[in-house]
Amino acid sequence: MTHDHVISAKSLSRADIETVLDRAAEIDRSPPDRDRHADDLLALCFFEPSTRTHMSFETAIKRLGGDALDMGPVESSSATKGESLADTVRVVEGYADALVLRHPSEGAAQMASEFVDIPLINAGDGAGQHPTQTLLDLYTMREAAGDLADLTVGIMGDLKYGRTVHSLAYALTKFDARQHFVSPESLSLPRSVRYDLHESGARLKEHTDLDAVIEELDVLYVTRIQRERFPDENEYRQIAGEYRIDAATLEDAREECVVMHPLPRVDEIAPDVDATQHAHYFEQAHNAVPVRMALLDLLLSEDDR
Amino acid sequence: MTHDHVISAKSLSRADIETVLDRAAEIDRSPPDRDRHADDLLALCFFEPSTRTHMSFETAIKRLGGDALDMGPVESSSATKGESLADTVRVVEGYADALVLRHPSEGAAQMASEFVDIPLINAGDGAGQHPTQTLLDLYTMREAAGDLADLTVGIMGDLKYGRTVHSLAYALTKFDARQHFVSPESLSLPRSVRYDLHESGARLKEHTDLDAVIEELDVLYVTRIQRERFPDENEYRQIAGEYRIDAATLEDAREECVVMHPLPRVDEIAPDVDATQHAHYFEQAHNAVPVRMALLDLLLSEDDR
Amino acid sequence: MTHDHVISAKSLSRADIETVLDRAAEIDRSPPDRDRHADDLLALCFFEPSTRTHMSFETAIKRLGGDALDMGPVESSSATKGESLADTVRVVEGYADALVLRHPSEGAAQMASEFVDIPLINAGDGAGQHPTQTLLDLYTMREAAGDLADLTVGIMGDLKYGRTVHSLAYALTKFDARQHFVSPESLSLPRSVRYDLHESGARLKEHTDLDAVIEELDVLYVTRIQRERFPDENEYRQIAGEYRIDAATLEDAREECVVMHPLPRVDEIAPDVDATQHAHYFEQAHNAVPVRMALLDLLLSEDDR
Repeated sequence: MTHDHVISAKSLSRADIETVLDRAAEIDRSPPDRDRHADDLLALCFFEPSTRTHMSFETAIKRLGGDALDMGPVESSSATKGESLADTVRVVEGYADALVLRHPSEGAAQMASEFVDIPLINAGDGAGQHPTQTLLDLYTMREAAGDLADLTVGIMGDLKYGRTVHSLAYALTKFDARQHFVSPESLSLPRSVRYDLHESGARLKEHTDLDAVIEELDVLYVTRIQRERFPDENEYRQIAGEYRIDAATLEDAREECVVMHPLPRVDEIAPDVDATQHAHYFEQAHNAVPVRMALLDLLLSEDDR
Repeated sequence: MTHDHVISAKSLSRADIETVLDRAAEIDRSPPDRDRHADDLLALCFFEPSTRTHMSFETAIKRLGGDALDMGPVESSSATKGESLADTVRVVEGYADALVLRHPSEGAAQMASEFVDIPLINAGDGAGQHPTQTLLDLYTMREAAGDLADLTVGIMGDLKYGRTVHSLAYALTKFDARQHFVSPESLSLPRSVRYDLHESGARLKEHTDLDAVIEELDVLYVTRIQRERFPDENEYRQIAGEYRIDAATLEDAREECVVMHPLPRVDEIAPDVDATQHAHYFEQAHNAVPVRMALLDLLLSEDDR
Repeated sequence: MTHDHVISAKSLSRADIETVLDRAAEIDRSPPDRDRHADDLLALCFFEPSTRTHMSFETAIKRLGGDALDMGPVESSSATKGESLADTVRVVEGYADALVLRHPSEGAAQMASEFVDIPLINAGDGAGQHPTQTLLDLYTMREAAGDLADLTVGIMGDLKYGRTVHSLAYALTKFDARQHFVSPESLSLPRSVRYDLHESGARLKEHTDLDAVIEELDVLYVTRIQRERFPDENEYRQIAGEYRIDAATLEDAREECVVMHPLPRVDEIAPDVDATQHAHYFEQAHNAVPVRMALLDLLLSEDDR
């Protein structure tokens, strides 16, 4: 790892990503000696709640033998007394060996990282980045479907507002995977993202209908279509219905096709998919642990030793 | 233990209960080696707050040498984004080695347990069950008053709505203890509970007045009469006053009579009881630790080794 | 240490304070063996939020190799069901080896300490005391500026309502430091505090203008002037502006002058001070860890061994 801070998936090179995924695979097979990180404290500073991300980072540091330190809910933090984010992280730096930051404002992680010397990990900053989600998505694809360069990945749902999706697309481009984007016209990739992906040499196609590509996919990545994007409730219902999958949808898919979802899901994937061999979304959620362990192990080893 | 999940006191056999109480007594005398559970993580998923239960489970796993993982308040959890309980526990299963669930809906623990392979402990599900409370009540009686089969136990207060009380009554029946139920008519045992207890061969009597039995009791278990059960404030005050005990009430009791209460208490037990030899409610609260340690030790040992 | 509970800075003798500061300095140089406190659990009972105090106590016990136990937010605690503070701490006593109490009511810590046998540390009780803040302030002065007896300390801002300031002034008096108090007339020391300090032999002077003393100071301790003290917004703005420092203010200060602030700051210290050699407020915040480690180490060693 050549980074002290992990702010965006975009800034991680293919080699960085491979280092993390390889370490995660090692950790998955045999967890590192708990003494190695016994002195390490990870501060969790969540300026907006995110249970899943919070719990998996806490799990990761504890599985490494270290411990976590929680800032608590933002409503009771010093921020409510008018303290700046820069001051908060400079205080927390004195308590912990690394810091995980979740913040509602885009750019918050980059700004905060300029004030601290301990490694800072961006765990989501508004419409910005959430690099460890991308890492665990890639890890799940690699473990479940094989070499990323050989994969054909379909990404379906809200491609316009979905932060997760953009980071994932940039990362898959680095690995030269084939990408199919499936969405209603109104929620297709933003122009700037499409442009950047083409500039980076992405092998991508766009579709409005899953049927057009389902047979080719090694991975189908489903995301939620949010009600609040639609002024009209009927339009929402109609579109959400068209981009929902169930066991029947998957009858046309390859037997090995891996279905993923960043969770929580609401209606996008019917419960009857859970029992099929395609369902990998819980495994994907569980992969948050080895991937975050790997990242912390790399950052904290650099730092201390 | 023949159970992977601990959902209700009713489903625990007398042998199961004795296994837990015996292990708790051992742990009380000498805590197990901390290395034994150093790798164990216990997830605490509280869909409604319960400080005392939460803190004592956290204490228990930490005293065992393991660690806890908190889901955080339900207001900031994925449940508010529409995630089902089944999905939530399937995600948490990937983080932890066992799961404690507190939920406001009766039956939630049973349902959730069907989706996970790690041991799940019900820490209260609405009007349903709270089996570890029953275990610590039994442990306190056995340690403070002796063999459960020889005991005469008085249970006083709200016997109609009190979940704790019903579980306790079923468990005492398995041990063949004598039971006296003391309550106003309007808060006496529900018909179905009375019927089930008789069917199970319970040795029980019902009273409206503590004076009738106080001299016989080895244990007096007091519960709170809740204001919200009474449409009429005056009626509430009058009844609450009649079923409140103080040091004077206990002058007629046997010297060894053990007074218990699940806490928090409000007015049911006057502070002047605290200094008497009868007061065992703080000891009872403290017994949550060895009893929950014993249960976790048994469940996690089965699971891992 | 001759105290089992730490309730107020006033009740700590000069020898007590020196014992803690000396131990903190040792710990700062080399942290104690983590095995020493591996069995120690510290309960954090915060009846009002205080992120910084909470996080630094949690850090302290974890850096010692022990673990923390959190009561959670007061809104979900048993207190909301009408439980008395005395009952709450008597229950928690059964879980933990020491207890940190933060409470909005003056005198709460003293009262609570009378009900428990484990060491209780007051982490702030309303307008009352916050002794560990005073200890870390003194530690910062001693480490950054030298022997307390030789120091000239300026304390500026709200001297009327500032709890921190009064405790600090009493403690500095024990060490015979010279003290300059700088504030607007309307926020000068309360008569009773001034009287007590004189009675204790304090070497103090009062000023309305920092210029009068800035050149003499080894330490400048700045506190926040709170908007809510002023009925008139304009008066607040004017006064807050006069008692705000920036890099230019410090041009008249001695080169070694150490600027402190209990944090969070809002406007009292301009960001351009951060880059000067005077800024010691983040170091001061970080000193919470060794000082609280030292205190816990002393209290828990007495208790257990």
